[in-house]
Amino acid sequence: MLAYQKPCTIGDPVDDIDTPALVVCLNKLEENVGKMNTAMEKYPGVAVRPHVKTHKCPEVARMQMRAGAVGMCCQTLTEAEAMVGGGVADVFITNELVGKTKLRRLASLARQAAVSITVDDAANLQDISDVATEMGVTIHIAIEVNVGQDRCGVEPGEPAVSLAKLATSLPGVTFKGIHCYNGWNQHVRSTEERSNAVNKVVDLTRKTLEALKAAGLECPYVTGGGTGTFHFEAASKVFTEVQPGSYVFMDADYYKNLARDGNFDTEFLQSLFVLTTVQSAAASGERVVLDAGLKAVSLDSGVPMLSQRPDLTYHSGGDNHGIVTPGGDLPVGSKVWLIPGHCDPTVNLYDWIVGLRDGKVECVWPVSGRGPGN
Amino acid sequence: MLAYQKPCTIGDPVDDIDTPALVVCLNKLEENVGKMNTAMEKYPGVAVRPHVKTHKCPEVARMQMRAGAVGMCCQTLTEAEAMVGGGVADVFITNELVGKTKLRRLASLARQAAVSITVDDAANLQDISDVATEMGVTIHIAIEVNVGQDRCGVEPGEPAVSLAKLATSLPGVTFKGIHCYNGWNQHVRSTEERSNAVNKVVDLTRKTLEALKAAGLECPYVTGGGTGTFHFEAASKVFTEVQPGSYVFMDADYYKNLARDGNFDTEFLQSLFVLTTVQSAAASGERVVLDAGLKAVSLDSGVPMLSQRPDLTYHSGGDNHGIVTPGGDLPVGSKVWLIPGHCDPTVNLYDWIVGLRDGKVECVWPVSGRGPGN
Repeated sequence: MLAYQKPCTIGDPVDDIDTPALVVCLNKLEENVGKMNTAMEKYPGVAVRPHVKTHKCPEVARMQMRAGAVGMCCQTLTEAEAMVGGGVADVFITNELVGKTKLRRLASLARQAAVSITVDDAANLQDISDVATEMGVTIHIAIEVNVGQDRCGVEPGEPAVSLAKLATSLPGVTFKGIHCYNGWNQHVRSTEERSNAVNKVVDLTRKTLEALKAAGLECPYVTGGGTGTFHFEAASKVFTEVQPGSYVFMDADYYKNLARDGNFDTEFLQSLFVLTTVQSAAASGERVVLDAGLKAVSLDSGVPMLSQRPDLTYHSGGDNHGIVTPGGDLPVGSKVWLIPGHCDPTVNLYDWIVGLRDGKVECVWPVSGRGPGN
Repeated sequence: MLAYQKPCTIGDPVDDIDTPALVVCLNKLEENVGKMNTAMEKYPGVAVRPHVKTHKCPEVARMQMRAGAVGMCCQTLTEAEAMVGGGVADVFITNELVGKTKLRRLASLARQAAVSITVDDAANLQDISDVATEMGVTIHIAIEVNVGQDRCGVEPGEPAVSLAKLATSLPGVTFKGIHCYNGWNQHVRSTEERSNAVNKVVDLTRKTLEALKAAGLECPYVTGGGTGTFHFEAASKVFTEVQPGSYVFMDADYYKNLARDGNFDTEFLQSLFVLTTVQSAAASGERVVLDAGLKAVSLDSGVPMLSQRPDLTYHSGGDNHGIVTPGGDLPVGSKVWLIPGHCDPTVNLYDWIVGLRDGKVECVWPVSGRGPGN
C-alpha cells in the first residue's frame, strides 16, 4: 500500500484530523449535486455527464450518477479505470490516448463498460480500431474539434468530417459525435463576456455539424461546456451534453467569477477545503506558518483563500509551508481552513478525501483516480 | 492499493514505458551520489545528511547511506516513516511537528531509530517532552534559528538560548544543536552572490553559538546548507553537517545556477527526467501536445526544459497537457524527455520512479514518502 496513512477515522471530530487534509463538507457537496440536476431541468434533451477530473473519486461519481448523470467524463485511463471499477457503466475519455499499452487498457475497459474517447489523428484512430478489433470490443469515437482552446483537436469543418468518415469506415469503432470544449472560457470573469466566448464555440460547432451533414454523416452527439459555461452550451440547441466538473467542490478561481456577477453562477457552494495547522508562530507579529505548501494546495490558479478570514493572506512558503500575514492572532496548533485556488490539481495531491458532517468525520474516500496522467 | 499502476516492468525498453513517467538515469544518479562523497572529503569533520524531500524513496536513501551519509533529513513524518521502514537508522525531521497525533507517530519512530526534530516554540517542545516521556523514548531537539529564510525558526541569539535551556531541562528530550538553513540562498544565481548570502547565515549562526556558549550550553551540532550552497557551509568552520538533497537528481532551476558560473556546481549531472509522449499533432505547424501537464511536472520554479531540444519550448496546457512550440518535427507517439523545473515537488506527483540503465528498465521504485505533507 503506497498511500500515506489515512488522516482520521470515521467519527473523529475536526480537531483529530491530521493535517494537511483534504476535507469536503458533505451537506454542501450534496447540495451542489442536487443543484446541477435542478439547473439541467431547464434544458430538456441535454444530458449531463460530469467530469471526474475534479474529484477522481468513485464515491462522488456514484452520487452524481444517482442524481441523473448519464455517465462520467474522464481525462485519464487511471480515472476511467477507477470509475468503472467503482461501478460507473459509461465513461467518456475526453482526451487522446496514444500507444498500444494505453489502447489495450482502453479496450480492456470496453469489456466492462460503454467506453468512448476523443480522437484528432487518423493514425491514432486506426490504432484504436486495430486494438478494438484484436480484443473484440467496440470503442465509440468523438472527434475532438478545436473550438478555441488551441491545444488538441482538429480544426472545425472539413478536418473533422475527414476523421468522422474514417471512424464510420473502420471496424471496432463507431462515430459517436464531436467534442467541442474550450476550457479557458470557464474562467472569463464576467457573465456577458463568458456568454460571448461560448457564442464563438457554438458558431464553430455549428459549422462542423453543417459540414458533417453535407457529407451525409449523422452526428447525434455534441458535447462540451464546464462549470463556468454549461448554461450557455445547454441553451444553444446545438449541444446534446455538458461536462461540468468543478461545481461539486468549487474553488477560489471560480469564486472570482462569482464575485464579478450576481447571477446563476452563485448556485454552487464552496464545499472543498484544505484543513491546515499553524506550525510556527515564532514571528507571529509578522507572520505565522501553516503546514500546507505546494504539495498540499496547487498554486497554478493563484494562492488559496483563508476561509472566513479575508483579512489574512496566504503566501507560498515552498513545498511544505504556507506563510500567512499578518497572522498575529493565530497561535501554534490552531486550525486554518484554506479554499484551494484550483480544485482539480489540488485533489490530485491527496490519496484521501475526508467527508465531514456536523463537525464529525462521516467517511474517508480514496482518490483512486489520482496520478500524473497515465 | 491506491497507487496508479506501475508504468513498466523490469527489462522493458524505453518505448514500453507508459507515460508520463518519472525516470532516473541510474548511472548518473550513482555518479552524483559518489561525487557528493568526494566533495565532502575536502571538509573533514563535517558530516553529510542528505535531504530525502528530493526523492522520498528509501532505495535512494540506502544508496546515500552506503556512500557515507550519517543519516537522512526528512521534511515530513511520512518521509521519516518511509525511511525508517526502509532501513535508515537515523532520521532528522527538519520541520516543526504540531499536535498529539503527529507527536505520537514521532515517538513511535523513536522506538525504531534515532530521531531528531526542529523546534521553535516552547509549548511545542513541552508537548514533545510529554509524549516522549509517556512513550518512554528520547527525542533529540535542534532549535530552528531564522537565518534569513523568514519562515519558521526563532531569531538568532537569545531566543535560541532560551529554547535550548528548556530542552536541556525537560525529560524525554535532549538538546542536540541548532538548525540554520536558508532555502532561498540555494537559488541565488552567481557563485559570488551565493557565497555572500551564506556569509550572512554563518554570521547569524556564529552569533547564536556565542550566545549559547555564554549561557554555558555546549552545541556540538550545527546543520544547514543545500545543493546550491553546501560547500560554503561546510568550509565555514561553524557547520558540523550539511543537508544537500537535489544533487541526486538536479533540475532546470539548479541548471540556471550552473549556466551562470563554471565552478564546482557543475559537478552534479541531470539524472531525473519526465518521459512523455506526443499525444496530438493536429496543429503540428504551430504546436504539438504532450501528455504531461501540471499533474506530471511541478511548475512552481518555471516550466520544464526539453532535453536535447533547446529549440523547443514547453508551455503549460493545464492539468494534463504540455504544449510545445514550434514542434513541427514531432509526430504523434514520439517520446519527449522533460527536465523538471523543480525536482522535489515533481517527484511528489508520482508513486513510481523508473530506474533506467543502458536503455532498459532496471528497477521501479516506490516513492513511499510521497504525500501532501503529513
